[in-house]
Formats: sequence, structure tokens, C-alpha cells
Amino acid sequence: MSVLVVGSVAFDTLTTPFGTRKKILGGSATYFSLSARFFSPVKLVAVVGNDFPKKYIKLFEDKGIDLKGLDVADGKTFHWEGEYDWDFNAKTISTSLNVFANFNPKIPVEYKNSEYVFLANIDPDLQNKVLSQVKSPKLVACDTMNHWIASKPEALKKFLKKIDIFFLNDAEARQFSGEKNLVKAAKTIMKFGPKRIIIKKGEHGSLLFSKDSVFSLPAFLLEDVFDPTGAGDTFAGAVMGYLAKCGKISEKNLRNALIYGNIMATFTVEEFGPWRLSRVTKPEIEKRVKEFKRLTYF
Amino acid sequence: MSVLVVGSVAFDTLTTPFGTRKKILGGSATYFSLSARFFSPVKLVAVVGNDFPKKYIKLFEDKGIDLKGLDVADGKTFHWEGEYDWDFNAKTISTSLNVFANFNPKIPVEYKNSEYVFLANIDPDLQNKVLSQVKSPKLVACDTMNHWIASKPEALKKFLKKIDIFFLNDAEARQFSGEKNLVKAAKTIMKFGPKRIIIKKGEHGSLLFSKDSVFSLPAFLLEDVFDPTGAGDTFAGAVMGYLAKCGKISEKNLRNALIYGNIMATFTVEEFGPWRLSRVTKPEIEKRVKEFKRLTYF
Repeated sequence: MSVLVVGSVAFDTLTTPFGTRKKILGGSATYFSLSARFFSPVKLVAVVGNDFPKKYIKLFEDKGIDLKGLDVADGKTFHWEGEYDWDFNAKTISTSLNVFANFNPKIPVEYKNSEYVFLANIDPDLQNKVLSQVKSPKLVACDTMNHWIASKPEALKKFLKKIDIFFLNDAEARQFSGEKNLVKAAKTIMKFGPKRIIIKKGEHGSLLFSKDSVFSLPAFLLEDVFDPTGAGDTFAGAVMGYLAKCGKISEKNLRNALIYGNIMATFTVEEFGPWRLSRVTKPEIEKRVKEFKRLTYF
Repeated sequence: MSVLVVGSVAFDTLTTPFGTRKKILGGSATYFSLSARFFSPVKLVAVVGNDFPKKYIKLFEDKGIDLKGLDVADGKTFHWEGEYDWDFNAKTISTSLNVFANFNPKIPVEYKNSEYVFLANIDPDLQNKVLSQVKSPKLVACDTMNHWIASKPEALKKFLKKIDIFFLNDAEARQFSGEKNLVKAAKTIMKFGPKRIIIKKGEHGSLLFSKDSVFSLPAFLLEDVFDPTGAGDTFAGAVMGYLAKCGKISEKNLRNALIYGNIMATFTVEEFGPWRLSRVTKPEIEKRVKEFKRLTYF
């Protein structure tokens, strides 16, 4: 099965304690698709400006990502500038939406039968509108961010009723639920309607909440983290790609999907931008999965 | 095998976001022994004042803890007053050492052949002095705190050369090593001499570093945490008690020991003071271990 992702393809200007990179390839759909493609074919829906470099288009094409849904619009590409402290908390310096301000995704006719759909972090009303163009998806997942939780909580809650897996991070879970404790936060958010919630805790791993079970996964241990940008979308890409490959949403498949999500994100954070992720090989992935099993078995 | 613990038996006055408790039973050796006794007999070495309530002595006796090493000195019992914020970071309000100021532990002759020894958080010179009274211990473990890392780093490093398992928390590991990253921190601290390090990460679980391997364990998920006091000593008590019960220090036994440490600490934090821990039953412990396995298997 293939995975349809709707999100951003953008320029990122990033500063971490280890340096600065200007106007490099970024965006949620970028990280998602470069990760998911290891497991399943990926169809990408996004918009870029006519300043978007051909070499980046070629990168996606070389990785086998279907770009029929990539709209090249008149104007400039979305540009996010952010800074991270030593705890890798992100601070937005500037957001230039550019062509992304008018993003109103049309799902290509060839994509309308997609079964695995991921709506990356965009306006929940837009997420809803995009989803309505897909005929009968088998698994729908989405991400969000603090901005939409604060500004459109009701639209988000309405949309979540259609969601099978809701990805969010620990800070967002606390913000959305008003609960400090993550178990309580997850219980509150489950009542909004999503079938499952995955709470991403960065260097502390991740949690999967289903109706009848909870799964806690520690993070892989890394000595060097240079840039956390895109880790969450890389994680979601692997989870969705893996599930689409399995074709069945069982607890076992979900738990294994989280392990791959975990591992794929470790490659992303080892370098600035999506370059390490774009170079990684299947044997490198499997080697790290094995190391992870040694790290956690008992 | 029995476990010898040398540490504090004290009064705690505690304030958490959930309330205040005045002058309740506390101290590192208290939590350690009430936890370790589920797995192995415990011999306790500590000092209290003559104001120490008989009912607390009786509590230890009722739980089968050997008190030949508990000195009742003229004066007042050690009294710690602390406060926790919503993140459960401890702030010391006051420390009245009282009889603990002159604590110079004499190991009773019956304890000198102890094979499993835990030196709780006291002056590293004192830890060293106590250890020299034990004939040929099989496994020696210790804890420490930010105060000794800052004030006596060289004495601590010297002592660590004799240590099989060094317990410390994530903040202490960063402080002691000067490394923000915990893998790098552990590597640096391993060079000081301990054979193994266990880094306690509170609600984020724990890490075991050995010469050739690393083990990462997520925490059990709790909805209600009322008071983190004693969680680390409860954890260490279960780890040491379990290892003494096994009688063999293998990677498998160590990993299982950490699971029991993890689980025992969950009981401690569910109520103020050591009361929940003192009431817990073996079936409750095994039930929670099973739940933990369901939470983490893949």
C-alpha cells in the first residue's frame, strides 16, 4: 500500500548550538516522505514557489517519491527560521508563509483512492477539507502544533473524530488536555475522538495509547544530536510507511512501527537538515533496529 | 544473601503540590531497606536521636529489618525539610543534621562478612571508611548527591574505584561529567572507576551502563504521583535486594533488577512518605511487573 502525505515542503534556516544552516530543504512532508519511502511508496501533496531549486525536486524523484501532488505556484517557497537551545527546544525566529499562505490542496485524481493518509501539521479546517477529497481511507493519521491547539481547538477536536492515529508531542498533549500528567492528558485527548494517540517525547521516547492498551518505548541512545528539525515527521513517516507495508493495524504491527519511527528519527537528528535521512541505507536501518533491541530487551 | 545498607534514618517535612506532611519517617536507609526486604534480608546501619519514635523502630522490626546497626544517640534525629514543584524538582528548605552530624558508622561484628553492600548518599570519605570495615564484599554499590559532587569530587572519584554499581540521577551525571549528553556523561564517569552506572531519570525511566552494554528501561506509567521522596533509594533497594537474592551478577539479573527497582519506586511515589511502600504486598508487586511487561513488550 502507498501512503499519501499532505504537508509542507519548505526552506528552513536553522540555528542549533552546533551552528547555522541557511535556506536548506525542510518541511513536514519532506521529512515524512524521505522516511516513509523506505517502507512504502509515497505520494506527496504540497506547494512550493517557483524559487524552489530543481535539485530538491530531483532529490525527491531520485528517492521514488510521487510528486504529481506537488504544486509549483508563482511566488516564494514557505520559509521557516528557527533556533534551538541546548535542550533542543525550538524558538521560531520568523515564519514567511509565502505561497503556503494560500495552500488549498487539491488531491490529484490518481490519489483519491489512497488508503493510508497522513495530514501533517496544517490548519485543522484545511486538514478536514483535504481528507474529504479521499474516497475511503483505511487509516488516517495527523499531526498538529501548539498554534492550532491554541487558536482552533474546536476545529481540531471536530477533525480528530475522523482520526485513527493522532501524533503530538508531550508539550502539545499537556497544552491540549490541560493535564500535566501524560496518562491523564492522553485519556482526555482520547475523549475528543481519535482511535489512538502517539505522544512523542523526544530523547525520552514515545507512548502509544489505544483504547485497551498503552505502549511505552524508550528512545535510542545517541551521543551526538545536531539538529532535531524534522524528527517528529520522520518518526510519523516511518510509522505510517511501516503500517502501510503491513497492510494490517494490529497491536504488534503498531509497536514495531513505533520502533522504526524511533530509529528513522535518529538518522535525521544526526545532521542538519534531511541529508543524513536521505542517504541512509536499509542495512543501516536494520543494524540500528538490532542495536535498539539489544539496548531494551529483558 | 543479605544486603547491608549504610545511610540515613530521618524525619522529613515535605511539601508537594498535593500538600504538606510534617516530621514523617524518611531517610535513604529507610526507603532502601523497606524496598530491599522484599527480596533479601536487610541489615541497617544508621543513627537516630533519642526523639525517634518507638513506632518507627517497630515498623522496621515488623518488616524483618535487622537493626543491630541502628545507633540511638543522645540528641535529635536528622530532619530534612524540602519542597517540590510540579516537575517534582526538590528544593531544600532546611537541613538539621543533629545526631547525623557526628555519624561515624561502626559496622557490627555480625555484619562484617556482608557480601552485598550499599552506601547511601553520605560524605564519600565516610562511605570509604565504612566500606573498609567490610571484609570481602561481593558487590558494592553507592549513591551520591550534587552536594558531594561539588564539594568533594576527588574523594568521590577515589571511592568510585571500589564501586561495582554507582547510582546517580541524570542531573548529577551531567554535573559530575560536565557533559550534557547522558551517553557521554556515562562514558566520562565510567573512567572514574565504577564497573557499572545506573542513571535514574525519574518519570523517564533509567539507564544501566556496563563496560560492553547499555540498557534503557522506560518508566512505569502512573496517573498519580504525590511525593517523589525516596524513589531513588527505593529503586536502589530493590535492585540490590534482587541481585542479592539471585546471588549472581549477570546482565539478565541486572536488567530484571532494574525492572523491580522501577516497579518498587512506583509504590513509593503514590503516597507521601514510605507508607505505601511499607504496606505493599508481593502479589501487588508481581501484578505491576506484569503490567509493565505488557506496557513495554514488542
